Amino acid sequence: MATRKLNLHIENTRRKNSIFHTLPLHWDAACRRHRALARHIGKISFGWDGDILEAALADADLVIGLPADRSRLAERAPRLKWIHSTSAGIDGVLPLDWLPRGTVFTNNSGAHGHKAEQYMTMAYHLLNSRMAAIMANQHARRWEALFSPSISGKTVVVVGLGDLGEAAARAAKKIGLKVIGVRRSAQNNRHADRVVTYRQLDKVLPQADFVVLAVPLTAETRGLMSAARMDLLKPSASIINIARGPVIDQAALEKRLRGGRLAGAMLDVVEPEPLPADATLWTAPNLIITPHVSCDDGEHYIDISLDLWFENLALFLAGKKLKRRIDPKLGY
Amino acid sequence: MATRKLNLHIENTRRKNSIFHTLPLHWDAACRRHRALARHIGKISFGWDGDILEAALADADLVIGLPADRSRLAERAPRLKWIHSTSAGIDGVLPLDWLPRGTVFTNNSGAHGHKAEQYMTMAYHLLNSRMAAIMANQHARRWEALFSPSISGKTVVVVGLGDLGEAAARAAKKIGLKVIGVRRSAQNNRHADRVVTYRQLDKVLPQADFVVLAVPLTAETRGLMSAARMDLLKPSASIINIARGPVIDQAALEKRLRGGRLAGAMLDVVEPEPLPADATLWTAPNLIITPHVSCDDGEHYIDISLDLWFENLALFLAGKKLKRRIDPKLGY
Repeated sequence: MATRKLNLHIENTRRKNSIFHTLPLHWDAACRRHRALARHIGKISFGWDGDILEAALADADLVIGLPADRSRLAERAPRLKWIHSTSAGIDGVLPLDWLPRGTVFTNNSGAHGHKAEQYMTMAYHLLNSRMAAIMANQHARRWEALFSPSISGKTVVVVGLGDLGEAAARAAKKIGLKVIGVRRSAQNNRHADRVVTYRQLDKVLPQADFVVLAVPLTAETRGLMSAARMDLLKPSASIINIARGPVIDQAALEKRLRGGRLAGAMLDVVEPEPLPADATLWTAPNLIITPHVSCDDGEHYIDISLDLWFENLALFLAGKKLKRRIDPKLGY
Repeated sequence: MATRKLNLHIENTRRKNSIFHTLPLHWDAACRRHRALARHIGKISFGWDGDILEAALADADLVIGLPADRSRLAERAPRLKWIHSTSAGIDGVLPLDWLPRGTVFTNNSGAHGHKAEQYMTMAYHLLNSRMAAIMANQHARRWEALFSPSISGKTVVVVGLGDLGEAAARAAKKIGLKVIGVRRSAQNNRHADRVVTYRQLDKVLPQADFVVLAVPLTAETRGLMSAARMDLLKPSASIINIARGPVIDQAALEKRLRGGRLAGAMLDVVEPEPLPADATLWTAPNLIITPHVSCDDGEHYIDISLDLWFENLALFLAGKKLKRRIDPKLGY
């Protein structure tokens, strides 16, 4: 264990929703949950949009939250050993050329699974129950008995098996779906009936009643759900995107929904965000848009995040490899 | 076992959605699933809206489906021993003064639990996730990050613990809710953390995050969820009705939703049905209306129903008491 106390700077931004702000009250509560570990923290500072950033960086060992200005970090923060993103998606700060050599970068993967599982449970049922059409009927004051089959036994293809993909798979198994996972390596996963690699993606898509996109946005995953791949799906299939908007060809999706060539879709992420009022996507039939809220606990996001951070602090103090480390080459 | 073969008449009505029509194809498939039992059926007839009813009743032992004209049944159907409703709700044929003495009357309770559980899983999440507001925003092309807390640990009060109430309780337990069941007798139920009687209803309502109405409509349950009872709820609570419209004071509910005195509601049943286009209820905020489709499997309703009927046929042939018998006095 390190004996010298570590200085921590927490950088917040008002551009983000308040559920993502790490306040002294969150920190104090987390310290009460992790007393022994918290003793290793010396000075702690809370900054907003860079207001006290330079002074804090000068002697910070640890930083939570990514400063908007990440230039020359090695010079500005000579003691910086570990910087942590309170988001899981870090596509906004790629490439990682700003990350000093020897500084560990972690993300907040793991903070989203619990809520994502709940969202996914809802999403499968919403799509299976034709709720987009039923709620459009409500808006039009139209009573039309749209019945739906049982969801049991349907098949979901979950693309990506990280924190979010595992949540999607877990939700699916609990409601009786068959789960085919797609990831870089075809190692088994306890929440999937079968796992295949990306090379086999096009072979499993025709089996899907639901496709879930749960990959990080990287150069490789941009446009992954292309028009050609959508055309491999059954017309009765639906697509759910909880990853990032650019993972799917949004225009091609809209066209297929309008043409009845896909049964439905649920998008928690779109391109761009916020979606402008004049975007035609808003009115695509059998589409449900949620405003990027699927995976964030609106009440305890920061509490959950700090618990994960303290778990890593224990590893850090023990000189062990941290969890949720970003590989600068892979970008996730 | 009876040796004489039994004559069966199946009465359909075109007024109902086609998913509720028992066709020869369903019957033949069910006979293949229940070969030994099916051998006891002699003559079988399929009638539509009374077209062959009189001739069929003249020598029918068993009837599936309720004829519109139920007058003088004892005379018209002198051999009738058992009549079965393909619905679970039989409030439309109360009082049961038309039922000949000695004729057993069963309903279709048990055919709805599987789908009802799926609907209820969705309903809890929809209400917790503020989806009515999110979908209203979509309609208005408005991006507003409405976050929501985790659903785990919230409390649901399930009023009625029959087929539907049990499904609501089962769904709730699977997603981590605390379940308080309300029924006539306070006997334990494996899907509820606690069961109380109707006398204690007003005491448990203030604990509810969700209230589920799952009672049959009888003289006793009409208006059960009154304005006064709604005012016992927390303003953050939501109400789900999968019973019958008149179980809740619909005008009082609408008023409370418009005034923000309740967080939301989901109604699969309303009064009247179909809800007329000029009903103001359609536009109440944070309300989701589904067109009485919550509990009926749109693909296999009749298959499931016939399986339950054959289960009872085995009891009938063995001279045993049938399941799902309606008590003419209680009306359910």
